Amino acid sequence: MAKFYGIGVGPGDPELITIKAVKTLQYVDIIICPEAKKDKDSIALNIVRQYLKENTEIIFLTFPMTHDKEAVTSKALENSVVIKNEIDKGKNIGFITIGDPMVFSTYINLLPHLKSKGIQIETIPGITSFCAVAGRVNIPLCTKEETLGILPLMKDCFSLDKMLDDYDNLVIMKPSHDSAKMADILEAKGYSNKFVLVSKCGTEEEEICYDIDRLRKEKVHYLSTLIVKQSKV
Amino acid sequence: MAKFYGIGVGPGDPELITIKAVKTLQYVDIIICPEAKKDKDSIALNIVRQYLKENTEIIFLTFPMTHDKEAVTSKALENSVVIKNEIDKGKNIGFITIGDPMVFSTYINLLPHLKSKGIQIETIPGITSFCAVAGRVNIPLCTKEETLGILPLMKDCFSLDKMLDDYDNLVIMKPSHDSAKMADILEAKGYSNKFVLVSKCGTEEEEICYDIDRLRKEKVHYLSTLIVKQSKV
Repeated sequence: MAKFYGIGVGPGDPELITIKAVKTLQYVDIIICPEAKKDKDSIALNIVRQYLKENTEIIFLTFPMTHDKEAVTSKALENSVVIKNEIDKGKNIGFITIGDPMVFSTYINLLPHLKSKGIQIETIPGITSFCAVAGRVNIPLCTKEETLGILPLMKDCFSLDKMLDDYDNLVIMKPSHDSAKMADILEAKGYSNKFVLVSKCGTEEEEICYDIDRLRKEKVHYLSTLIVKQSKV
Repeated sequence: MAKFYGIGVGPGDPELITIKAVKTLQYVDIIICPEAKKDKDSIALNIVRQYLKENTEIIFLTFPMTHDKEAVTSKALENSVVIKNEIDKGKNIGFITIGDPMVFSTYINLLPHLKSKGIQIETIPGITSFCAVAGRVNIPLCTKEETLGILPLMKDCFSLDKMLDDYDNLVIMKPSHDSAKMADILEAKGYSNKFVLVSKCGTEEEEICYDIDRLRKEKVHYLSTLIVKQSKV
């Protein structure tokens, strides 16, 4: 029976992908690229393009980014039908996601529908953005008895205050959602020199920011991750 | 000038290492294996052995696992002198750590000493145990607006109660420290069927456990990771 592979392709640098992911990319018949809207431009695809066989079929599937749960579910269900049809034809499928498939990815929306259809699933982990960013600036995420909290920034910065109090170290994902308000909270709570923001880590357009004023004023790219420490960075 | 590379070698499966890590392993002159005690047996070395050149020099350095901070610091300092001497001889060095170098590793103890000696450092991220485990059992770590807490289990299960209340998803690292007490807390707080424990993930001796009684009674291997969800797994 053909198989479905969820493949983590890492944070952006094509060399930060695993041997297992590369072997799987070269094995599958079809690559599925999730996209938020129909534009046929995919960061994940750009990362893996060099590893694909010439005759690999590429299918773009739209996964809308919206708070409308019903729309998300019905589209994921629809996409799972497309996948099931290809599996039934004997095609092995690789679904690519940036970072790791189990950390804030569209893959997670798809999983229950694939499971309920009895599709054989193998997930191949990827390098998360926060590990890549920590390595890039040589700042530890957590050591010894410390805790690490990972928080996706929502439009209202909900729960950021509390998490800053509770955690030894904090990773803020999607800081572009409201970077100005986030900067205000960090400053008000005494973290002005205890954070680093990295955008487009490992690419030619990478930017590293330790400056609270820049964080407040400048537009933060979607592909950014912020680390906050209890100690000066 | 020669350079020092901190290399994440992933959770255990030799294919769950990045292309960049493999290229670096093949480039360096010396591989440093940290070990808790002098026994010349290293999980990290077993993972990477197949990727090394024949003439790569291997140096074992002891990093004691103890709560005695002074002993940890003085040994890390001593080890950094060994490294500096090799760098001064023009040798490129790769320091291997299982998982990711910035998540609970001895590499973190070494970093400040390397920085203060002006050694050029590059960190190469690795697949964390928790991403590998989540992928292995196809259980998401966090999605949409959820938070993820990562907690190393200490002997007294300190802060586990509170983190179970505060987090949408929780990863418990080093659950072998007191797995029986941890099982009691999970059961008391209603998480008996909301966890999964994976030991030696991706190896031939891998074990997966969803059973609270087994968790309470059986010895948990050092290389284990536990995921707790707010929903049934």
